[in-house]
Amino acid sequence: MKKESMKIKELFSKQEGLIGREVTLQGWIRNHRKQKNMGFIELFDGSCFKSLQLVYTTETDADGKLKVLHNGACIQATGIVQQGFQKELIELEVTSVELLGDCPEDYPLQPKRHSIEFLRENAYLRPRTRLFQAVFRIRSVAAQAVHNYFTDRGFLYVHTPLITANDAEGAGNTFAVTTLDIVNGKSDQKMTKEEFFKEDFFGLPASLAVTGQLEAEVFAMAFGDVYTFGPTFRAENSNTKTHAAEFWMIEPEMAFCDLDRLMDVEEDFLKTILGFIMERCQDEITFLEEFSKLPLRERMQSVIDSKIARVRHAEAIQILKDADERFEFEPCFGEDIAKEHEKYLTDKYFKAPVFVYDWPKDIKAFYMYQNEDGQTVGAVDLLVPGAGELMGGSQREVRYDRLLARMDELGISQESMWWYLNLRKFGTCDHAGFGMGFERLLIYVTGMENIRDVIPFHRTPGSCEY
Amino acid sequence: MKKESMKIKELFSKQEGLIGREVTLQGWIRNHRKQKNMGFIELFDGSCFKSLQLVYTTETDADGKLKVLHNGACIQATGIVQQGFQKELIELEVTSVELLGDCPEDYPLQPKRHSIEFLRENAYLRPRTRLFQAVFRIRSVAAQAVHNYFTDRGFLYVHTPLITANDAEGAGNTFAVTTLDIVNGKSDQKMTKEEFFKEDFFGLPASLAVTGQLEAEVFAMAFGDVYTFGPTFRAENSNTKTHAAEFWMIEPEMAFCDLDRLMDVEEDFLKTILGFIMERCQDEITFLEEFSKLPLRERMQSVIDSKIARVRHAEAIQILKDADERFEFEPCFGEDIAKEHEKYLTDKYFKAPVFVYDWPKDIKAFYMYQNEDGQTVGAVDLLVPGAGELMGGSQREVRYDRLLARMDELGISQESMWWYLNLRKFGTCDHAGFGMGFERLLIYVTGMENIRDVIPFHRTPGSCEY
Repeated sequence: MKKESMKIKELFSKQEGLIGREVTLQGWIRNHRKQKNMGFIELFDGSCFKSLQLVYTTETDADGKLKVLHNGACIQATGIVQQGFQKELIELEVTSVELLGDCPEDYPLQPKRHSIEFLRENAYLRPRTRLFQAVFRIRSVAAQAVHNYFTDRGFLYVHTPLITANDAEGAGNTFAVTTLDIVNGKSDQKMTKEEFFKEDFFGLPASLAVTGQLEAEVFAMAFGDVYTFGPTFRAENSNTKTHAAEFWMIEPEMAFCDLDRLMDVEEDFLKTILGFIMERCQDEITFLEEFSKLPLRERMQSVIDSKIARVRHAEAIQILKDADERFEFEPCFGEDIAKEHEKYLTDKYFKAPVFVYDWPKDIKAFYMYQNEDGQTVGAVDLLVPGAGELMGGSQREVRYDRLLARMDELGISQESMWWYLNLRKFGTCDHAGFGMGFERLLIYVTGMENIRDVIPFHRTPGSCEY
Repeated sequence: MKKESMKIKELFSKQEGLIGREVTLQGWIRNHRKQKNMGFIELFDGSCFKSLQLVYTTETDADGKLKVLHNGACIQATGIVQQGFQKELIELEVTSVELLGDCPEDYPLQPKRHSIEFLRENAYLRPRTRLFQAVFRIRSVAAQAVHNYFTDRGFLYVHTPLITANDAEGAGNTFAVTTLDIVNGKSDQKMTKEEFFKEDFFGLPASLAVTGQLEAEVFAMAFGDVYTFGPTFRAENSNTKTHAAEFWMIEPEMAFCDLDRLMDVEEDFLKTILGFIMERCQDEITFLEEFSKLPLRERMQSVIDSKIARVRHAEAIQILKDADERFEFEPCFGEDIAKEHEKYLTDKYFKAPVFVYDWPKDIKAFYMYQNEDGQTVGAVDLLVPGAGELMGGSQREVRYDRLLARMDELGISQESMWWYLNLRKFGTCDHAGFGMGFERLLIYVTGMENIRDVIPFHRTPGSCEY
């Protein structure tokens, strides 16, 4: 029979007022230690990072129901709240227990340290471990931080489409979306490719979106400040620690905004969400610091306290060329900046995050604002110590002719992009935006090394389990 | 040159304190009316539903820059805040203006009422109309309401995967996701289907998820209360007003929860988010009431004030059978309830929302709790006057053997669902959850008739524009 139950979070927040009171809790057994005359059950319910110690003696467990409880079992426990003996502030002296869902002895999660790879294979159980309780609580709180940041400032939340017929960002690394018969393909030889795709659900080749930016621009030209926060897809066949085929991205877009204001917003956004997470996830961060051996709190605080430097790409290259440091790749004007260069700039030279802006146009996207020098575009990357490139943004090219010329140069079809071009024709204005991969932020905040471990169920080449 | 500018929302909220002050604003011209000696410009900037009236005289417009401004143009205007003459509370007496982005005379949006179909075709411009300013602001505020509701109550926000290899909900209406060559298919005759899909990105057939529920259950068994809010996909080839191939869904899942508590949560959730939207979107709702000729506010308030009735499916059928009403479809025990039946129950019989629960098992999903009668499952649909079925939920079957038997009966493969079954083996407990199509809620709140008009860019058979 069920009693009105309490969450462990509530118990810890009201603890002093509850001592001596009877409460009922429901949760899972993480560890059950049995001694000769007593037993200790570590119970968690997911409401907070802390677990609660349940204590019983052979006398209180006269019917022997408690001592046989397995690790992993789900129980309802009633007992008296007590001042704890050791470091725990409170514990529960159990008076009765009900087994809600048993767990066999071969339960994969045992009260020992499992390898992270083992837990990844058991992704449907790992949310029950302390490590992933910390990671996924932070993920949820970080998402809340993002939404709060933008809605507090009047930004409109826009759901841009996931299925798209735009091929704007360049072909090759997108997933096709289809209801056609993949196995048999276009079996009729006389049929053209166009005729074949006419029979597809949308009547033309469709794919999963790699960005929501272009559609976000539509909304920025009507609502001023907008943002997206949704899944994004890349069919890159690369098995690295930082790439996933499906990940979540945040893309704000602001009208009446140039590159300078964009950097202001990025800086304020990053500091605000880090502060939000640090305040709400103290137990989780403490645990993850021990786990990762990284000074997570300190490095986040130092970002919050820093004034983020701003250097042009050309200046950054000059700093790298002048550096008393051997790089594997030589820094070069007009080229990208390697990971080792980023690291030098953030960790050694600036000892702080840095915005690198005004990038060579040839290594950046077609929609970026063409600077007067004819060589660079108004793009900006934010480099953060310990995280590398965390955000990438740009002021957009709003001069119709220049945008068109650049699309022609790069061979980008106007046909599917007519509306994007038209935005420049009908009451345009300077606007700018950035993208931040949500998992990249989470890797930085949690100290986890692999993107597979900050996302509930990872999608990578060959991996589509669960 | 840019001046420190103000949003129209800020102007209206501080209006009295600003009278006589000079301010600068940026926005778009919705309508420009010219009289002999004066001109009136309706300016909006998307920060709020209200637009601001800019006033000028032929004297203040000595250089003639103002009178030539086109509808749709983007401008920066500086002027003195004035008490308005007519119904507007404040207006701006323009002292100077800068054209940021001109708009040609053939601008598709003219200051007249366009048909909703015309606006749908011009989906990249419609966010600038008053109608879609209202709709998409409500969409954003409703999303905020959803997130706030759950995070305020300690629910974990989970991002369940969009690409999946589960075929649990039954085949046929899913989109395939692939990097294979769709046009040529499996050209090698000797290759098996399995070998063919081994070469696909994930090494097996993958599709777009129709639900995140099963993965949400994983997290409920670790965090207690969780929810998802993300895109969902159906490849249904139906051209109705309520179906889209891509839409957003909210799916909470709660551990230690039975059908009764589920209904409690659904009721509280619906009332809370309706209240949140009504409070924050007053201007938008007023406009939409005029547009739709529906008593939007009144019907939302009546939901908030109601105690939602709860009837078993069998009782509901009995009510329908006893009704003094001719139905096109005869109500029948063991069968689904038609739209006309829903309407009778909510609009005539209960004159309020109603939960219909304990549904015949044969018309419901495999994972629902099997009631002791052997005929029904612990499922519940929430029917709302003017909206029809708004939410659907169930207590989940957590008895391993019964779940397995039901899957066998329905021919659902255990192979891809081993982990879902295992959840029942390792420390399970009663849990329950519901799903709400976000657009269905929006259709109800906004009074819009077509799902295509509450989603930024709709994806329906043959439509994948933008």
